[in-house]
Amino acid sequence: MCLLTLTTDFGLADTYVGVMKGVILGIAPDARLVDLTHEIAPQNLLEASARLEAAIPYFPPGTIHLVVVDPGVGTERAALVVETETCRFVAPDNGVLTLPLRRFPAQRVVRLGEAARRYFQQPVSATFHGRDVFAPIAAHLAAGVPSESLGEAIAPETLVTLPIPEPQAERDAEGRSMLRLHTLYTDHFGNLITDLTAERWTVWEQAEGVLASGITVQVGGHQWQGLARTFAEVPIGSSLAYWGSAGRLEIAIRNGNAARTLGLSPGDPILLVDAKKPLAGPRRA
Amino acid sequence: MCLLTLTTDFGLADTYVGVMKGVILGIAPDARLVDLTHEIAPQNLLEASARLEAAIPYFPPGTIHLVVVDPGVGTERAALVVETETCRFVAPDNGVLTLPLRRFPAQRVVRLGEAARRYFQQPVSATFHGRDVFAPIAAHLAAGVPSESLGEAIAPETLVTLPIPEPQAERDAEGRSMLRLHTLYTDHFGNLITDLTAERWTVWEQAEGVLASGITVQVGGHQWQGLARTFAEVPIGSSLAYWGSAGRLEIAIRNGNAARTLGLSPGDPILLVDAKKPLAGPRRA
Amino acid sequence: MCLLTLTTDFGLADTYVGVMKGVILGIAPDARLVDLTHEIAPQNLLEASARLEAAIPYFPPGTIHLVVVDPGVGTERAALVVETETCRFVAPDNGVLTLPLRRFPAQRVVRLGEAARRYFQQPVSATFHGRDVFAPIAAHLAAGVPSESLGEAIAPETLVTLPIPEPQAERDAEGRSMLRLHTLYTDHFGNLITDLTAERWTVWEQAEGVLASGITVQVGGHQWQGLARTFAEVPIGSSLAYWGSAGRLEIAIRNGNAARTLGLSPGDPILLVDAKKPLAGPRRA
Repeated sequence: MCLLTLTTDFGLADTYVGVMKGVILGIAPDARLVDLTHEIAPQNLLEASARLEAAIPYFPPGTIHLVVVDPGVGTERAALVVETETCRFVAPDNGVLTLPLRRFPAQRVVRLGEAARRYFQQPVSATFHGRDVFAPIAAHLAAGVPSESLGEAIAPETLVTLPIPEPQAERDAEGRSMLRLHTLYTDHFGNLITDLTAERWTVWEQAEGVLASGITVQVGGHQWQGLARTFAEVPIGSSLAYWGSAGRLEIAIRNGNAARTLGLSPGDPILLVDAKKPLAGPRRA
Repeated sequence: MCLLTLTTDFGLADTYVGVMKGVILGIAPDARLVDLTHEIAPQNLLEASARLEAAIPYFPPGTIHLVVVDPGVGTERAALVVETETCRFVAPDNGVLTLPLRRFPAQRVVRLGEAARRYFQQPVSATFHGRDVFAPIAAHLAAGVPSESLGEAIAPETLVTLPIPEPQAERDAEGRSMLRLHTLYTDHFGNLITDLTAERWTVWEQAEGVLASGITVQVGGHQWQGLARTFAEVPIGSSLAYWGSAGRLEIAIRNGNAARTLGLSPGDPILLVDAKKPLAGPRRA
Repeated sequence: MCLLTLTTDFGLADTYVGVMKGVILGIAPDARLVDLTHEIAPQNLLEASARLEAAIPYFPPGTIHLVVVDPGVGTERAALVVETETCRFVAPDNGVLTLPLRRFPAQRVVRLGEAARRYFQQPVSATFHGRDVFAPIAAHLAAGVPSESLGEAIAPETLVTLPIPEPQAERDAEGRSMLRLHTLYTDHFGNLITDLTAERWTVWEQAEGVLASGITVQVGGHQWQGLARTFAEVPIGSSLAYWGSAGRLEIAIRNGNAARTLGLSPGDPILLVDAKKPLAGPRRA
């Protein structure tokens, strides 16, 4: 029994995901399959990377995570098996594993080579490596084929990496401490998941002597004071910043859709400002 | 082998449901998981309750139904394990089990207490008890932990209940027998599932001496005569009232979308009128 | 262990699919279930037939394919079990198996009869045979009940068949060789899957002496030259015709939605023309 998760941008309207499962279960009939999500925004590697990082800790040791977000399908990008202390990944070498591997460092990286071809679905199509390359490799791993036998071991440092946004500590025009956040992805409730982790917050909090209750949050022309612990702390329809279940600060509107209401475009900043001065201008949405 | 169903309002776009499954299979690797639906309208307890009631009879004895529609997450609302003759529920104490428990009475109700905390995912987040509280408890039940060990047994009568709409027998201005129905929920075809069960119909039929073929159905400015058995009884594009697969009277348009076409707002009445007088006014949509 | 796939037009918003799985696992607890798709356009038998044909080769021998796209539910249409060399189907006799059975000829066809009724979910509803007829029959097959015991064996030639579009070889006004294609279905990326298979192409190629690189593709007022192997061969935003993973020629726009951009209506032709003359008029989208 081996647990195998699937993460793609294929959606569920077509049979692509079902067909990958047919391939897997034909090779590893005892594998347990779990859909992590198939609604990654098309080709959005950062979103896939951040969602994987947050989900992985909740799967048992030995789980194989099959990730097919693959803008380079049909080109020469490599295909990988990556082993960490607790799990294995099968994915294209396009940076999609950047965040998971920061948290769970790679112990062995294998670039699929000639030796892996015997396991591919033949003929290998030019457009659907999820079915023809990645699914059969993941299934053979689940069935006990060792990763070493699939290609050349390479150094983790040689993997393609994504540029990952990081919170930037700054000072505003009035000399107040400020932390500039970025949105990693938006969930289907419209909550914005930022690049601020609790660890990063603690570093800034201690360095600058700020307080969660004394922070002004500035997003898309709106601002309000303080970080919240739960939705119940603000009235229905109000915006809030809280520590989400993915371990990151999230921007939400209680019973509403923050992405839509705050009108944030990708790249627009989310600012945390040490509120030495009283609030002015528009308040919470 | 234990069958475990999941019902949430999380949707499938995010990884929330996949993560719950990771938690469950880490604890109960042999559990069989079935998605009942993850598209309950956000926080709609009545819809979840009615859908569960209709689905439960089709699952084998011993099935565990995990229900996470939880507007009160992060507040002090209790978490429950409820056992009936044929199945078990794990759910918040917010009324979502009202309709299932009317049909399958509770034999034991346990409110999760201190003793259950050892099974929670740590730390318990403020916003995702599906992952941190309900999934691990359901999984431990599946793995054989007895419900008695999880907290205090309480009386079924003390559970939070939802107000459930009921058909009202009335007389119209002309003295004709009339039954006023309400919509419990709308399915994705646009069919309106009403609060009228076959049992309640029989009571009214016998009390008032009405006939299924002699009833006028009045919905949102449209009216037509008679209840149907199948869609094939009316032309394509026509509205009909028929006994749906959930055991309730449903309003539909053959090959169409009744919710959209009839323009019904929540709370608008659906009337069954004993048609002593000939029909007048607009007919079937 | 028996693999059982489900293909319906029920969507995943309702509990219909979950309930079918409850029925199946109550009868065949060891069955492995795979969702092929539940997003077939409502009652679109041609789409279901083409999707099934493309998916079936990727499932292991012995797989049972349960297909519930059933516009005739509640009428007298027959219900079938069909056995082929590698798989079995449970489906209504409405033509939905036409394409799969061309590729994997029927070896035994059984029309469900009186003997099958003992396995139905009682009472049999008028509107949900997926739950009451097809799911329990598929589950009993998975549990080892022989198809012969379920009804009368009938000749495969007596099955209802769908009219299936076929590419037509023609000559245009200037005497050039031309192949007229049709769209079988559109996937959720907006790619148009045509009725042209690689085998049919080879026949035309050899008969007319045409070249893949010398073909003009004409679709909805746009035209361009040549068939592509991968998306990477054309700039982002450009239209292309390529051999898709289903083994058929597909029309797509790289990183775009061809169905929307090219504005094709069902029935509009897709023309491949032997480009003896230089291109004129609008080019690629």
